[in-house]
Amino acid sequence: MSITNQVYPVIWNQDRVLLIDQNRLPNEYTFVEITCSEDMGQAIKTMIVRGAPAIGVAAAYGMYLGATEIQTENRDEFLTKLEQIAQMLRQTRPTAVNLFWAIARMMRTAYESIGTVAEIKAILLKTAQTINSEDLQTCQAIGDNGLKVLPSNPDKLTILTHCNAGALATAGYGTALGVVRSAWREGRLMRVFADETRPRLQGAKLTAWECVQEGIPVTVITDSMAAHCMKQGLIHAVVVGADRIAANGDVANKIGTYSLALVAKAHNVPFFVAAPLSTIDFELSSGEEIPIEERDPAEIYKVGDTILTPAGVDFYNPAFDVTPAELISAIITEHGAVAPAELKHFREKQLV
Amino acid sequence: MSITNQVYPVIWNQDRVLLIDQNRLPNEYTFVEITCSEDMGQAIKTMIVRGAPAIGVAAAYGMYLGATEIQTENRDEFLTKLEQIAQMLRQTRPTAVNLFWAIARMMRTAYESIGTVAEIKAILLKTAQTINSEDLQTCQAIGDNGLKVLPSNPDKLTILTHCNAGALATAGYGTALGVVRSAWREGRLMRVFADETRPRLQGAKLTAWECVQEGIPVTVITDSMAAHCMKQGLIHAVVVGADRIAANGDVANKIGTYSLALVAKAHNVPFFVAAPLSTIDFELSSGEEIPIEERDPAEIYKVGDTILTPAGVDFYNPAFDVTPAELISAIITEHGAVAPAELKHFREKQLV
Repeated sequence: MSITNQVYPVIWNQDRVLLIDQNRLPNEYTFVEITCSEDMGQAIKTMIVRGAPAIGVAAAYGMYLGATEIQTENRDEFLTKLEQIAQMLRQTRPTAVNLFWAIARMMRTAYESIGTVAEIKAILLKTAQTINSEDLQTCQAIGDNGLKVLPSNPDKLTILTHCNAGALATAGYGTALGVVRSAWREGRLMRVFADETRPRLQGAKLTAWECVQEGIPVTVITDSMAAHCMKQGLIHAVVVGADRIAANGDVANKIGTYSLALVAKAHNVPFFVAAPLSTIDFELSSGEEIPIEERDPAEIYKVGDTILTPAGVDFYNPAFDVTPAELISAIITEHGAVAPAELKHFREKQLV
Repeated sequence: MSITNQVYPVIWNQDRVLLIDQNRLPNEYTFVEITCSEDMGQAIKTMIVRGAPAIGVAAAYGMYLGATEIQTENRDEFLTKLEQIAQMLRQTRPTAVNLFWAIARMMRTAYESIGTVAEIKAILLKTAQTINSEDLQTCQAIGDNGLKVLPSNPDKLTILTHCNAGALATAGYGTALGVVRSAWREGRLMRVFADETRPRLQGAKLTAWECVQEGIPVTVITDSMAAHCMKQGLIHAVVVGADRIAANGDVANKIGTYSLALVAKAHNVPFFVAAPLSTIDFELSSGEEIPIEERDPAEIYKVGDTILTPAGVDFYNPAFDVTPAELISAIITEHGAVAPAELKHFREKQLV
């Protein structure tokens, strides 16, 4: 793995943010320049940047860009206007807890800062950069912690993943694909199976692309093929990411994750969730309370320029589903991999 | 439901066959006129007509059209030339069992007929029309038998189906969609949920189109959403078709059926297979013996003109999977709906 192949979806560059345009992958590897908070909100909403941790990093920079747009030296006025920008950014993706977490951290930084508005702005940039670099370190720790719970047999594993919980979904390295990357580095990985992940095809487009960048062998299948692959013994473990984790270990993640967890259970294939502690929302006692974003039906009926369905059809397009804790073998975090029921210890240790 | 909205993919009209051009659905509802056996062969090969029973009906008419092309009054010469036409038609879709079955029945009819060549030609048309009407009656019986096993609560059901086991795949009415049509006629149906059915999208394209033709409310979802829909109580029953059923009740059907059966089981949603007795292969003791056809990876990586994946990726594209009998609530046939373990009674009664 050469350093030049490493993927960073959110890059701070002087006075602006460069985002890999994930809507153009895998055909074009291009960047979009974001110079204001409004554009960052749009970029999150239109999924130029996507994936819960990457959204968190992008939103943090969005908060900083917003701060620089506020034309006042009055601290209270500044905070009021910053809160409006926070509100605009919060409304872009309702399920992504990291979005709220990053915005809250930026707001807290602003409120807790003593000093001039200019000084607050400076510390906000530093905080956004810290969120960025912490996330990268977190992902590397998640990846390495995953090695401790992956099956020890066979020597070289096939890992099935869903959607893209990769470098593109984080500051870099990835969560589920962080585990894949660490396994690849240690010679423990034979091949990745990537669910294409309808409707937006993040598996076919993004996970496959990331694997190809680093020379990791990857087989793309349709979501409907996972059970058949497991029945044939082709899959040794499933590793997915998470958008939000409730206190009881229930996990909200990309639509199709729940189905995958059920079929993994039916075949005794271990099912792992790889996510930073910031994904855990201890305010929610169970997954029942997690709001599920419903997205534009065009995501289902249109691929490229091709309309798939006749007129007169209805659609249902939930972006996420909830996988109950009992289907999850372990949740792999930067502070170790634990059974879902053990998440509460992280809180007791005040790690969250 | 008005009679004019009924879908017949193969229509005999005076001296020619009208085929719904299924390659143009759902965007264009057009017919192709077939006036000679050669064109019928091409229509089967290029999938203008598809679905095993529909192919059988089309091939039977193709045999008759071929018979009319033979310019002789000599019976032996006629049979020799008819056998050449049979051979041409057999080569169009080498794996379609109903194709061989229909051609064999037409040839047997010709061999067993006593009388002039003109008389044999007349009886061949009658046989093709009989194959056509028998298939339609079989589907209607399957549909009505389905009513006896569908849940009695609630009054109006939502039925989830996968792929297209509809009028388009048969002489008309359909197998799984036959059950849907009967339920609709009897006021027992609230709505169909149609899995889009990757990779070839027969659910999004064909099942959705059939429902729209008859005013049946239909919601298209991606295959990965079925489990989430069930968890929310949106689905009261699953009804699918079958490509082949083993003696023990294991069912080979479109890829994704097995996954759907597993998630239905997890939610206690009844899972029904609707198929004619001719689909049962008593030569196979279990589904393990059913060979799984692997198809062109382009079906996965290309939709319309859009390439979904980056270069350098591998694919796995099994066309169907096997659902074990224990996941199936009942198999609905033209002679009644039975538990998979009871299929053997059909053989004992010499119905198969």
